[in-house]
Amino acid sequence: MPTEPLPAFDPERFRREGRAVVDWIADYWQTVADRPVQSSVDPGWVRSQLPGHPPEQPEPLAAVLADLDRIIVPGLTHWQHPGFFAYFPASASGPSILGELLSAGMGVQGMLWATSPACTELETHVLDWLRELLGLPDRFASAGVGGGVIHDSASSGLLCAVVAARERALECTAEQTAAGSPEQRQPLVAYTSAAAHSSIEKGLGIAGIDRQRLRKIETNDRGEMDADRLAARMDADARNGMIPFFVAATVGTTSSGAFDAVPLIAAATQRHNAWLHVDAAWAGAAAICPELRGGIVAGAEAADSWGFNPHKWLLVNFDCHTLWVADRRPFVRALSMKPDYLRNAATESGSVIDYSDWQVPLGRRFRALKLWMTLRMIGAAALRQRIRDHVAWAAEFADWVRADRRFELLAEPSLSLVAFGLRAGDEAAEALLDRINRGGRVLLSPARVGGRHALRLAVGGTLTRREDVETAWREISRLA
Amino acid sequence: MPTEPLPAFDPERFRREGRAVVDWIADYWQTVADRPVQSSVDPGWVRSQLPGHPPEQPEPLAAVLADLDRIIVPGLTHWQHPGFFAYFPASASGPSILGELLSAGMGVQGMLWATSPACTELETHVLDWLRELLGLPDRFASAGVGGGVIHDSASSGLLCAVVAARERALECTAEQTAAGSPEQRQPLVAYTSAAAHSSIEKGLGIAGIDRQRLRKIETNDRGEMDADRLAARMDADARNGMIPFFVAATVGTTSSGAFDAVPLIAAATQRHNAWLHVDAAWAGAAAICPELRGGIVAGAEAADSWGFNPHKWLLVNFDCHTLWVADRRPFVRALSMKPDYLRNAATESGSVIDYSDWQVPLGRRFRALKLWMTLRMIGAAALRQRIRDHVAWAAEFADWVRADRRFELLAEPSLSLVAFGLRAGDEAAEALLDRINRGGRVLLSPARVGGRHALRLAVGGTLTRREDVETAWREISRLA
Repeated sequence: MPTEPLPAFDPERFRREGRAVVDWIADYWQTVADRPVQSSVDPGWVRSQLPGHPPEQPEPLAAVLADLDRIIVPGLTHWQHPGFFAYFPASASGPSILGELLSAGMGVQGMLWATSPACTELETHVLDWLRELLGLPDRFASAGVGGGVIHDSASSGLLCAVVAARERALECTAEQTAAGSPEQRQPLVAYTSAAAHSSIEKGLGIAGIDRQRLRKIETNDRGEMDADRLAARMDADARNGMIPFFVAATVGTTSSGAFDAVPLIAAATQRHNAWLHVDAAWAGAAAICPELRGGIVAGAEAADSWGFNPHKWLLVNFDCHTLWVADRRPFVRALSMKPDYLRNAATESGSVIDYSDWQVPLGRRFRALKLWMTLRMIGAAALRQRIRDHVAWAAEFADWVRADRRFELLAEPSLSLVAFGLRAGDEAAEALLDRINRGGRVLLSPARVGGRHALRLAVGGTLTRREDVETAWREISRLA
Repeated sequence: MPTEPLPAFDPERFRREGRAVVDWIADYWQTVADRPVQSSVDPGWVRSQLPGHPPEQPEPLAAVLADLDRIIVPGLTHWQHPGFFAYFPASASGPSILGELLSAGMGVQGMLWATSPACTELETHVLDWLRELLGLPDRFASAGVGGGVIHDSASSGLLCAVVAARERALECTAEQTAAGSPEQRQPLVAYTSAAAHSSIEKGLGIAGIDRQRLRKIETNDRGEMDADRLAARMDADARNGMIPFFVAATVGTTSSGAFDAVPLIAAATQRHNAWLHVDAAWAGAAAICPELRGGIVAGAEAADSWGFNPHKWLLVNFDCHTLWVADRRPFVRALSMKPDYLRNAATESGSVIDYSDWQVPLGRRFRALKLWMTLRMIGAAALRQRIRDHVAWAAEFADWVRADRRFELLAEPSLSLVAFGLRAGDEAAEALLDRINRGGRVLLSPARVGGRHALRLAVGGTLTRREDVETAWREISRLA
């Protein structure tokens, strides 16, 4: 046993162990297709394999890698498996994994521009690049009062948009009313569609806007928010002394991939001077393809904030949500705290961005590296091609569903998402989903679409090829 | 130019490029001590070096690494430099960097137990280990209704504690009052000390508890919250029809490392059935040393939530905040959302933890790996020795300050933190800090302590040795 503590970072040891871990990961990707997609361990099994007490003395990397193989890997549901079609795939890539490694290896923390200028400036710059690739309007470019920022997830981006929107709404109200808490007299109300992601209700709830003040607007038969009902509801709330302050539109709903009509929603929103947030978490990535862009960025020129997840469909490993704001100032007013221990000349000069003013946490890692490396080492052309392939394969899959009279499409396919059901009914569909997922070759996830029990297939995995979509269909068809 | 898209993950290419990146990181750590700690680039310089438009075609890793050396590294403030004594150091280590790499390499997403059981179970298990190492009470063990969870930062952990506390308070109030929104009649009020971290005010603000409803309790001359004033203020607020719902105590303030008297604070808190959160973000790590534990965990048996950052002083790379809760149920009630597309049998059985119910985001990466690997590959004994060394070196540094009549300690040293000033006054101290930091060998940060301008030296860097503390003192002394 060593009597001297090991150095916490020994470069030669790191080179050796780093190579072993890199090889372990390469082996994992080379063999992941041979494993069941979904872990079949029982609750508690992983813990039962681990020692009850923490280690006093150091153990070698080999012991950890052996436990990865024996305990951890059997307990994984393999998100990088080519047969993973559940939720929305979280596609990683070699360059993004290496970007994450570099971020951890540099170990800098970019809470302020001054605490590592490159951490902030690379992020601002790469988000300008990505804005250009997506065809988002100029108002989101950092050259003006807007700009982009990386959050961990769409949930966190949404929460910050809500807080900035509240700040703006209460400032306006405070100007119009006497001193005191305006919210107690005029409640703030928010709007989204009944098909919007649960993170919107959750984020509003965290911000103290409870369910009674969230209007879930009905959707039409395509799953899109009914813009007329939204407008009518906002008008009625305003007449009743409430303040419509926040509208979240969805471009690509989770259940069926529906696109809200953002231009129509924007008209109602602007009439009430409410904040318009667009949640394009999954579908946003497809805007890098000009022919798919139209419905995705339509209305963005009226949005106050617009976000999507490169960690879903743009080959950046989780976590990487990118959020653009048209005016960063309400974010800073709502979220900036600069106690004495964070004072610095750059902040006081007003000439830099401190990204901790745009998010919940104070600290932040250098996430821009993985986005930058993915864009550079894969290139925009190949990223577009992947998305086009996935959309084409999903369309083929939808055709196979249409041609089989046991099945029915529950919505038109949207980009790479297909939601389908069984004519035999919802119970049969639920049982089929269970059989498919237990089979271990394909993973789908459930949803409710038009009141029916749907099976969702979302193409987007890094290793997924056309053959894997075919295999999925054969497996689904066989088990139906 | 390639006409076929490159594969997003090519195992052989990943092995080759992974080795190059591992070597780049090892080289970086071997040379970081030779660089200026703080970046001296001007605002905009990093961006001026980057192409204005995103790349269409892939570039090789070598081009990225060359840009790291030429553009990114000069723009870094080197948090892993042995002369980094600013803020609280964010100490990384070989094992934790490899844990982050494995997490990115596996690319699983643990929003639900079912989406990767090992991701959840390893986290629960390692947080039980860490609870044992810290000597935290049994109520935080996962065997009961409590348990631990990893967040990105203390800010996010605090926000979730606030939201859970609000949930519990409003449930209680709703039982006592008629239907309707109880908060509008009986405002919720929160308490912390004037020396508490800004993330507490920020988190409360995000949750909609504005500044008028946060009482910043005065501190005594040691920077500790005045528990008598807290008790008096809570009583007065309750008499005035308000609900004291949340108290945040600080163990190790940012400015001077003061420890609030948690047992006294707990007595006042319990009388009002308020939630007690303990923020031990920096100092908490030292509780792994039994002889330092007393003041750190005192009163924890009355806390509803207790958090610290292994990413500060426990060799886990940023981000890793660990939060323990005595009762997970109010978290789940406040933060759980299970729409149809997240439904699964394991959740419905009630026998598993879904950690998305304990945090703001839905998605989550496999952060437990880096904590597990750090504990295993370094071992508790060496982690303790490092903390003891740092505390001893800070005490020596404080002696040097005391012995030099140009300087004065502005507070007794606390663990590894020393806050000191200049007898020549605050302007001289501010100018000295600026000279030290521009010198490039040492980085300190500012604070206000007892109304005075302090220079803070926090020992905690991974590469920092006793000699580096001596060098820091020589440099400070020379420039004074």
